[in-house]
Amino acid sequence: MAAATAARSVRRSATRLASSDVATFRSWLDGVDAVLLDCDGVIWRGTTPIPGALAAIDALRAAGKRVVFVSNNSTKSRATYVGKLKRVCGIESTVDDVMSSAFAAASLLASKKLAPAEGHDQVGVFVVGESGLHEELRAQGFRTIGQDEGGGKPFDFAGFDVASLDGGVRAVVQGFDTEFSYNKLALAASYIRYARAEYVATNTDETFPAHGFVVPGGGSMVAALRTGCGVEPEVAGKPSPRLMDLIAAHIGVPASRCAMVGDRLNTDIRFGNSTGAQTALVLTGVTTAAQAEASKGPERPDIVLDSIADVTALLAAASE
Amino acid sequence: MAAATAARSVRRSATRLASSDVATFRSWLDGVDAVLLDCDGVIWRGTTPIPGALAAIDALRAAGKRVVFVSNNSTKSRATYVGKLKRVCGIESTVDDVMSSAFAAASLLASKKLAPAEGHDQVGVFVVGESGLHEELRAQGFRTIGQDEGGGKPFDFAGFDVASLDGGVRAVVQGFDTEFSYNKLALAASYIRYARAEYVATNTDETFPAHGFVVPGGGSMVAALRTGCGVEPEVAGKPSPRLMDLIAAHIGVPASRCAMVGDRLNTDIRFGNSTGAQTALVLTGVTTAAQAEASKGPERPDIVLDSIADVTALLAAASE
Repeated sequence: MAAATAARSVRRSATRLASSDVATFRSWLDGVDAVLLDCDGVIWRGTTPIPGALAAIDALRAAGKRVVFVSNNSTKSRATYVGKLKRVCGIESTVDDVMSSAFAAASLLASKKLAPAEGHDQVGVFVVGESGLHEELRAQGFRTIGQDEGGGKPFDFAGFDVASLDGGVRAVVQGFDTEFSYNKLALAASYIRYARAEYVATNTDETFPAHGFVVPGGGSMVAALRTGCGVEPEVAGKPSPRLMDLIAAHIGVPASRCAMVGDRLNTDIRFGNSTGAQTALVLTGVTTAAQAEASKGPERPDIVLDSIADVTALLAAASE
Repeated sequence: MAAATAARSVRRSATRLASSDVATFRSWLDGVDAVLLDCDGVIWRGTTPIPGALAAIDALRAAGKRVVFVSNNSTKSRATYVGKLKRVCGIESTVDDVMSSAFAAASLLASKKLAPAEGHDQVGVFVVGESGLHEELRAQGFRTIGQDEGGGKPFDFAGFDVASLDGGVRAVVQGFDTEFSYNKLALAASYIRYARAEYVATNTDETFPAHGFVVPGGGSMVAALRTGCGVEPEVAGKPSPRLMDLIAAHIGVPASRCAMVGDRLNTDIRFGNSTGAQTALVLTGVTTAAQAEASKGPERPDIVLDSIADVTALLAAASE
């Protein structure tokens, strides 16, 4: 309880830690059993590692903290993430250490326990997304379609018939998709509107940084579909509290004993704060120090670090 | 003034006219010099004429009303519209009788009097839209690009450089685009974010009816871009009051002496009501009688007609 009180007082001032702020850091991490780390902007940017990320994760693990990688990137399967963590940062992990929004979306859909449509063995899913999202859905027993609808394929206005929709599809799952097109948009909207398909989005990140510039994120494409079909999606990734329930069940640690570390106020920090976790913002991603200072309410982090690399020295000092 | 008072009283009750409601219709049309007609859902559906549309327009013209076709469809040039009016409905018109959202967007952009970028002869426009939008922009002196960015062309994440953007582009204009893709979305967002391009949308219609089903409209794609770039567009088409200023200047009739007839509450009726025009809803498009009954405030039409065809008999009765 002392730790929680301290965290709240820090939250109000959102102190930017120097390495001397050991007591503040210690009170923030005290009572935390698991550290949930966003990936892009925290441990890497694209395919470039954030310097010191591996050492920080080793230090957290050495301090007895369970480290979980929590990413809104929906394009990769968890298995692919394990490979990328090793390749980019040298981090060892298993799929149980990875919670991606693609896995979260598949898990959310599985939790609905939809029955296959009559005459079908599996629940069909129309996917607006990339291969990692297909993989995670298939791993949880869904039949996925939609992968052939991009690549410049035109929507068939003249030939389209509602009756021609795949009768086995009971859900649309949408994530980031570089093959997003009007054809995919119109088909997804038709499944939701006419086949009453459930609508699940992996995440609603408006943008993400790529090689020194910012591009539209999956949330921009979700905006198109929800506008085009008139239905709000259920969101599986950050900042949805559903994701914390999934993580807590998977690792056996309640949210109140988790700390969320991320670079985005409206996903990572909102996610942690709204679920009762501790929160830390790092300045190696999309948020500037000035934006962190100006943050308010559920988007105000408990603490701000220049980089995840600061954790190594802070932990060392705290254990002296 | 008497007519205006009568119209307001009808607006509050939104009477659905039978052909006996001649007095109500007469007071609605009294003092109106121009009738602005939406096209899709009013005089045709797709390429099928609404029965009686030609006769109704002939009757309005015979009664001395200027008829203007006001469409949010951004895919056709005004010249193409003149051809379609003749081909589908047998209606004679000139380009001066047509106010499309593509023309409105080009006019809105022209009104900004942007200077060409240094080293360029023309103001460049990145277009997310179809050929009619390109044509209207070129007709007003703009150089347009973007027509080669659809068709399945991938966005070049690895090779993209902000410096590689066309230095002459000073605006992004977005309309309905069946070749809408992530590549177009990312390029348009980059022009707005990094080249500080003006952002104009032809319209924000969420959906439109096509061959018996509803598909996402240009507004769904505008939702994607404004989410992805964080900038709100200036909207040129209905319900933007800018469009009424453009129409009034073009035909020399003030909004207070115009009547807007359409099938959509949140575009046509809002447009007319918010600019001080008379409004009539027809039930041959996307709005049901129940939705018309439930309409409120700026989306409540003065009167409701089953079809534009009713105008012929009502005018005949009113002149008896």
